[in-house]
Amino acid sequence: MSVDGDEVKILHGPDHPLSVGWTKSQKMTLFEDSAQPLILESGGILGTVEVEYETYGRLNDLASNAVLVCHALTGDAHAAGWDQEPAGALREFRKKKPGWWDSMIGPGKAIDTKRFFVVCVNVLGSCYGSTGPGSLNSETGRPWGLSFPVVTVGDWARVQMELLTRLGVSKLCSVIGGSMGGQIGLELALAYPERVGSMIILSAGHRVTNQGLAFNAVGRHAIIHDHNFKSGDYYGGPSPLMGLAAARMMAQITYLSEESLGHKFGRRLRGKESPDFTLTEIEFEMESYLSHQAESFVRRYDANSYLYMTRAMDYYDAAEKWGQGDLTKTAARLKARTMVVSFTSDWLFPPELCRELVSAMCRAGCPVSYVNIPSRYGHDAFLVETEAVRRLITIFLKD
Amino acid sequence: MSVDGDEVKILHGPDHPLSVGWTKSQKMTLFEDSAQPLILESGGILGTVEVEYETYGRLNDLASNAVLVCHALTGDAHAAGWDQEPAGALREFRKKKPGWWDSMIGPGKAIDTKRFFVVCVNVLGSCYGSTGPGSLNSETGRPWGLSFPVVTVGDWARVQMELLTRLGVSKLCSVIGGSMGGQIGLELALAYPERVGSMIILSAGHRVTNQGLAFNAVGRHAIIHDHNFKSGDYYGGPSPLMGLAAARMMAQITYLSEESLGHKFGRRLRGKESPDFTLTEIEFEMESYLSHQAESFVRRYDANSYLYMTRAMDYYDAAEKWGQGDLTKTAARLKARTMVVSFTSDWLFPPELCRELVSAMCRAGCPVSYVNIPSRYGHDAFLVETEAVRRLITIFLKD
Repeated sequence: MSVDGDEVKILHGPDHPLSVGWTKSQKMTLFEDSAQPLILESGGILGTVEVEYETYGRLNDLASNAVLVCHALTGDAHAAGWDQEPAGALREFRKKKPGWWDSMIGPGKAIDTKRFFVVCVNVLGSCYGSTGPGSLNSETGRPWGLSFPVVTVGDWARVQMELLTRLGVSKLCSVIGGSMGGQIGLELALAYPERVGSMIILSAGHRVTNQGLAFNAVGRHAIIHDHNFKSGDYYGGPSPLMGLAAARMMAQITYLSEESLGHKFGRRLRGKESPDFTLTEIEFEMESYLSHQAESFVRRYDANSYLYMTRAMDYYDAAEKWGQGDLTKTAARLKARTMVVSFTSDWLFPPELCRELVSAMCRAGCPVSYVNIPSRYGHDAFLVETEAVRRLITIFLKD
Repeated sequence: MSVDGDEVKILHGPDHPLSVGWTKSQKMTLFEDSAQPLILESGGILGTVEVEYETYGRLNDLASNAVLVCHALTGDAHAAGWDQEPAGALREFRKKKPGWWDSMIGPGKAIDTKRFFVVCVNVLGSCYGSTGPGSLNSETGRPWGLSFPVVTVGDWARVQMELLTRLGVSKLCSVIGGSMGGQIGLELALAYPERVGSMIILSAGHRVTNQGLAFNAVGRHAIIHDHNFKSGDYYGGPSPLMGLAAARMMAQITYLSEESLGHKFGRRLRGKESPDFTLTEIEFEMESYLSHQAESFVRRYDANSYLYMTRAMDYYDAAEKWGQGDLTKTAARLKARTMVVSFTSDWLFPPELCRELVSAMCRAGCPVSYVNIPSRYGHDAFLVETEAVRRLITIFLKD
């Protein structure tokens, strides 16, 4: 996502009445009972799990107003407001910007914190506060690296539900997520149908596309074959920045559309009238943008986490997991009132894929609405088409 | 291109009557008069230029039956028949397969060598026989590396025309090319309108798309930032194989379509019923395919040449070069009877881009026909949809 891109407008400072203001991430340790560790879908076992999360608004007395917001691939728990204490190099980038979905979350906004208790949880395996490959393995005193067990979308849903239970939420009013966050939302509603009242899935689906699977595979290949990767045991030394940069640049292309790339850069040269005829220097604005994206990304994200995140996305296949390959049978589990939103130029989670899910839900008799928003912004549209998304969420949450 | 992929069927052995049989590449030194070196569009100067080429069939007495076939990004001069003497590691792969367009070129085939004198020239900057960054610079006695001047599509057209002149061809009966080869064909017809009787452009256009530009940029970034790149001066030592592999894997995705990826691999696991939950090993057939493609590619292609080829493709903008940005004005230069062929699922040179060119040619009053072939094979379709392409070329060349 171009969460850190130039498309995200800063709408409100921390003192604005529509802002949740200054925020502070919280941590909770889960599965601390050694007799009941977290058994992952991969078969891996995690003794204790620390999760980082943020909350906005207050849980009401009936505990009926909780909305879980799920972040995308390289996102974090800081969804709204301004971070009080960005910690560590990987989080330095937070300083200049509000939370990644500040446009939607706040008092009087679409996800109204005067009405809702909003929770956003950093996923397991991430590098933004929840336990992950960069965390210390208490048994060795060293970072896990690739000895960290493989995690899945199902595990993420499980951990987030566990946290919600501890926060006193037995049933979610709604779960909302885009892209990878949409996969988590769907999985939550499938795994805990009685505990999810409604869900909004943006630019996501029941599986990644074939192209998505392929691009993720190439991204991991680039990281794993980076000279500095050292089987993931690179902490304390040089990181596989080159591989991570390549993965990010490639992914960045999949977040935009042919039209938005044309609109943003096209064939414009970078600060010159005619080309310098150089192979290794920047000629086109396009190259400059992609390089810049990569540079800022490798400063803030850990390569191992990138492997874990993309693998989890790739493994996820709701139909396979819940319906022996039958998506309608899968959808029949659902009890949540649902809205699915796609964007016309999104080719990472294209409208056709979203419609597959929606059709299955219709066949299964689920209460589902579907909107395909005309947009040129590609996959990033779910973060960029603020006005359309804001209206849809507002109406959906009104009921 | 998946020239080396599993989609290319071996139709005829060298002894088959429809095969051009055993072939032998030829070399010619051009611009050997030191008073008249090759002045490139980049401003670079090359003293002598060696070009590797192959010919099939015979030039008739009027020298009116020459057909130039232009190869794609990582192709070579060996377009038809079976190579008599594949030389060097980079060319080892030729042994088991006929030329890359053997399905079209031969006695009685679409490009009928009983009628036509067919020429295919390896482009300048390549690693397949023509002078390029891996060639020895006679002034230093060492490989050029990145001191080799930047070459352009215009330079390629110029060199190929020079060779044709030396072969006694003053006017081409036809020029035919796909993808990058189509760019060369178009440029030839624009630069030498009196010398090109007709042209067939397959899966190509007057420029690359914005996505094409972006993917090429990422590919080069991966190569240039490979630990072993050493500013292109890696000959004799380890090559930047990792960067080249990443570039190729990514490019490979752009040669296929969502549908063909699904048909070939989908989400199928590689030799197992359920995933092993590993980050660094192969899980999906998709990963296995891409890795295999990369492995075979880095054995046969030089990273520096990859930089030169993709840069040339990126720079090319026929409208900018010939019509101050006006494609109709550009097309007005053309005298060649033209057929443009696109394929419905090609998203590297998509039908819309081809139609831009065709529309401009129509507005300029050019004799042009256009066919959009329904195909699921993506960009590779121009090599895979043999039957449809064969018929179109046969009919076009009949006149």
